[in-house]
Amino acid sequence: MSGEFDLIARYFTVPAPVGMLGVGDDCALVPVAPGYQLATSTDLLIQGRHFLPDVSPVALGHKALAVNLSDLAAMGARPLACLLSLGLPRVDEAWLAGFSQGFLQLAERAGCALVGGDTTRSDIIVINVTVLGQVAPAQALRRSAALPGDTIWVTGSLGAPDVALELLQQSPCSNPGMLARVRPLLETPEPPVAMAPGLAGLAHAAIDISDGLLQDLGHVLKASRCGAQLDFDALPMHPALAALPEPRATQAVLCGGDVYQLCFTARADATAAIHELAARHGVDATLVGRVVETPGLQVLRRGQPIELPERGGFDHFA
Amino acid sequence: MSGEFDLIARYFTVPAPVGMLGVGDDCALVPVAPGYQLATSTDLLIQGRHFLPDVSPVALGHKALAVNLSDLAAMGARPLACLLSLGLPRVDEAWLAGFSQGFLQLAERAGCALVGGDTTRSDIIVINVTVLGQVAPAQALRRSAALPGDTIWVTGSLGAPDVALELLQQSPCSNPGMLARVRPLLETPEPPVAMAPGLAGLAHAAIDISDGLLQDLGHVLKASRCGAQLDFDALPMHPALAALPEPRATQAVLCGGDVYQLCFTARADATAAIHELAARHGVDATLVGRVVETPGLQVLRRGQPIELPERGGFDHFA
Repeated sequence: MSGEFDLIARYFTVPAPVGMLGVGDDCALVPVAPGYQLATSTDLLIQGRHFLPDVSPVALGHKALAVNLSDLAAMGARPLACLLSLGLPRVDEAWLAGFSQGFLQLAERAGCALVGGDTTRSDIIVINVTVLGQVAPAQALRRSAALPGDTIWVTGSLGAPDVALELLQQSPCSNPGMLARVRPLLETPEPPVAMAPGLAGLAHAAIDISDGLLQDLGHVLKASRCGAQLDFDALPMHPALAALPEPRATQAVLCGGDVYQLCFTARADATAAIHELAARHGVDATLVGRVVETPGLQVLRRGQPIELPERGGFDHFA
Repeated sequence: MSGEFDLIARYFTVPAPVGMLGVGDDCALVPVAPGYQLATSTDLLIQGRHFLPDVSPVALGHKALAVNLSDLAAMGARPLACLLSLGLPRVDEAWLAGFSQGFLQLAERAGCALVGGDTTRSDIIVINVTVLGQVAPAQALRRSAALPGDTIWVTGSLGAPDVALELLQQSPCSNPGMLARVRPLLETPEPPVAMAPGLAGLAHAAIDISDGLLQDLGHVLKASRCGAQLDFDALPMHPALAALPEPRATQAVLCGGDVYQLCFTARADATAAIHELAARHGVDATLVGRVVETPGLQVLRRGQPIELPERGGFDHFA
C-alpha cells in the first residue's frame, strides 16, 4: 500500500546479498551457518501513534514484544533472543517496573531472551524492539509462497482490537461492557508463537495480521501472483462483535488491524494436520478460504461476492 | 555513569540463558550454531539529543550505522547485516535521499547489508539501528577480559568530536577554522570495522569510546577487576586540539565522547603484530598505557599522576 511502503521501497530497498531475504517480508532471513537461518525483524512504537499515553505499562511491555514475536511466527521461526531500545521522558520507577514485567514475562514464556538494548531520554516514550529467531532454510513461510489450490487459514479471532481502539477513543465510552471484552485483544495480543514453527511442511505462505486481513492477505496474494476467495461466514469474528451494527462488524473483521494473529496458506491435504497442531498448542485455527489462480480478492457471503469496505488498512503516512 | 546504567540494570538485567552474553557489553552474544556466535547491538538516536536538527542527512545516515558498527568492532565481530527503524515527521525526499545514501554507502563498505526495518510517523526524527555480526566463540573481546600486564591501545584520535560539538553549539562559532578540521570526526566517525576481527588472538578486552576514554576504559577495568596507568603524553590527541587552551584540551582527550574508536587491551608480546594489523587496515593504533593489578585509573604526565577532570562522561539521565 501507498505511502509507508513506497517510502521504504524507494530509498532503502537494496538487493540483499545472495542467500539473504531483505526488506519486504515479515522478517529478514540471514543464513548464518549450514542448515541454520536467522529470522529477524524490528518494530518502532511511538507514544500517541502506536499506543495511548495512558495504556497500562504492563500491557505496553507485553505488546511491544508481542508485535515482534508475531513477525517471527509469520515466518515459522522459533524465537531466540531480543533487543529493546527505550526512549523515556524520565525515570519513572512504577512505569519501568510494569513495562519490564510485561515484557520479560512474555519473553520468558516465548523463549526469547532479552540480551541487549539501549536507553535514552526522549520527550515522548519511544520503544524499538528487534527479535531474532531461527528457521531451517527452505522452511521459512515467505509471503510469496502461496499456490493456487492452497487453503487459507486465520488463527485466533478478528475484529476485536479495532473495536477496542474505537471504544477507547470515545469519551465517555459508549459500551463499557463490550470494551471489557475486546480490550485485552488490543492491549495484550497473543500471537501463536509456539505453534508457528510447527507449520513448516504444512503451510506455504504466511503473514501476521497487523494492518487488517484484507490488506495483509493482499500482500501475500500480490507477492505470490495469485488471488483468493474468502468465505465471510467462516471468518472467526470475535463473539463480542455480534452485538455491533453493520457495516461496522464486517469492516472490523475484514479491515481491523492490530490483530497479531496469522493468516497462512497451506497444502490442501494438510487440513487435519493443521487442526491437530493448533489444538496441541491451544490455538484456534480456522479455514477461511482458498487461493485461486485469478488475481484479486473475493469475499463471499452465502456464496455471493460482497462489496469490500473502502478502508484497506492502516497507512502511517496517509 | 549512574542513572542510565542503573536503570537498565535494575529492570532489564535478567540472567541470560546458558551460553549467551546479555546486557552489559558492547554487544550481546548469542550462540547460534557450533562454532558460530552472533554478536548484536542496538542504538536509539533521537533528534535534539543525539544529533542537531540541522545536521546533514548524509552524515546522519552514516553516523547512525557507524555507532553500531563501532559496537561490533568492540567485540571483534565481523559485520553481517543490519535493521533500520525510522520515525519521521513527514516524507521529505531530499532528506531520505541523503540519509539513505550515507547509511547505505557505509553499509556496503562495511559488508553490513540492510535487510529489514520499520518506518512510521513521529513528531521528531527517531532512528534505531540494530546490527548483527559474527565472532568465533572464545574470540569475542569482552569488557571483562583485561589482564594485569596487558598493554592498552586506542585507535584513531581523541578529543575532536567533543570540541566539534562545543563549536557547533556556539552562535556565532568562535573558531570556524578549527571547526572545519574537527567536524568530520563528530559527524562521520570511522570505527575500525575491518581491522577489529583481526584483533582476535591479540587483544583481550575492548570497548568503543562513546562516552569518553576515562569512562569507557573505566567500564573495562571494573568488569575486569583491575586498574590501569595511562601515559597522557602518548594519547593520540587530534592535532587540531593543540591550539586549545588548557584544561580544555586535556578534558576533551580524556572525557570527550562520540569518538567511536576502540580502546583495547592486549597481550604484552603482541605489540608488533598489532602495529602490523593496524597498518594493513590504514588505522592508527597507539599504545597508551598498561593494565595493573591495583584497581583505579592513573593518568601520568611526564611520569607524574595528574588530577582527572570531574566530568566522567555523558549520562543521558543526569
